[in-house]
Order: sequence, then C-alpha cells, then structure tokens
Amino acid sequence: MDAADKIAVVEKYVAAFATADMDIIREIYADNARVEDPIGTPVHDGLEAVCAFYEGALKSGAKLALTGKPRCAGNAVAFPFQVNMPGMVIDIIDVFEFNEQGRISSMKAYWGPENIS
Amino acid sequence: MDAADKIAVVEKYVAAFATADMDIIREIYADNARVEDPIGTPVHDGLEAVCAFYEGALKSGAKLALTGKPRCAGNAVAFPFQVNMPGMVIDIIDVFEFNEQGRISSMKAYWGPENIS
Repeated sequence: MDAADKIAVVEKYVAAFATADMDIIREIYADNARVEDPIGTPVHDGLEAVCAFYEGALKSGAKLALTGKPRCAGNAVAFPFQVNMPGMVIDIIDVFEFNEQGRISSMKAYWGPENIS
Repeated sequence: MDAADKIAVVEKYVAAFATADMDIIREIYADNARVEDPIGTPVHDGLEAVCAFYEGALKSGAKLALTGKPRCAGNAVAFPFQVNMPGMVIDIIDVFEFNEQGRISSMKAYWGPENIS
C-alpha cells in the first residue's frame, strides 16, 4: 500500500464527516477494526462497534480539517487535524494502521483536555 | 503521569537536540525502551541501542521545532514537529508511550519521503 493510497483514505475520512456519510466509514474500516478514541478509553472492537461510535460522531455535526501533511510509514499513517463542533475545537492526531486489503485495522486518536479550545 | 509531565518530556526531547545532550536522552528513556524511526524499519531495542541511534542523530546537527501542540492521552503523547538538518526539513509525528516511572518505553516516528522538503 503506497503513500498515495493511505492519503486517499485520510481524505475519505475527512469527507465522511463533511457529508455525514456512514457508507464511507464502512468502506474504509476492516471487519475486525479496533478504534481507541482517545487513547486510554475503552476500545470499539469490530466494525459494528466502530460504526456505532461514528454514527454518534457524524450526527454531532463534527467536521475535520487537516492541520499538517499526513505522515506515511510502514503500514500506517499519522495525521494532525482539528475537529470543529458547535462551540468547540479539538486538536487531534490520529494514527491509522492498514491491513493487506488497504482497510483500516486500527485507529488510535491522541487528544486530551489541553487540546480543547 | 499527568499531561504537564508528558509535555515536559517532549520539551526535554527538543532540548536534547538543541544542545546535542545525550544525558537528556539517557534521562528520558527507560532501560527497556524501543524506538522505531520511521515505522516499518528495524527497532532499536534497549537503552544502549537507543542511545547509539541518537548519538548519530544528535551529531548530525538536527534540530527540532514543534509545529503543533502535544496531544496527551492515556500513557502516551503524540506531537507534530519539523526536524531541520542542513539542506533538509522533515515533517514528523512522534508517539511516546511512558512506563510507570514516567520514562519513555516506546517511541514511534511517522514520516516518509513525502514529508521531506
């Protein structure tokens, strides 16, 4: 999986929020995906749990904007972004790991109270 | 370990490069630390291997500058930065994981050819 393919997934992820499109979430995540958002909280384990998590996030009206270039390495990409919600902005770094089919097998989100403004 | 302690380690890390100070590297890393820089390349396993890696990096004259706020979550911190070397700038995201003594047990660096300018 080359860097362009990984960056395309990041762009799809941003588009999923922009258009509140759960079909994109189902397309980019693996069946056995694990999402930990933020790190240190209970993991959403498996595509159905992952989709339940995103259904809430997408309904909240959150929109994403990259704040730097995605960094591609090995089977992963890390990228800095802001999530904009009514009355709140959070600076986050996400790390996606991909399986051999190019789907996200692991998503880890790094952010804390200090990143909310 | 609270966020301020993690951010202080990130600041020490930047200072280690600014002053080419290996003592800081030995102070912030755990004895059993693992460094993968970038992701997908062989791991530097254990403090001596980690120090050998940083001796080269510090001698190269590389200097670090944060390009966004550190993101603290769980036992980890992720932060975006630029490394400046003669004739080259690389945009990187590092993730540190800490042990119970507040030392870095795992460092993972995310960057690729697309991040070099």
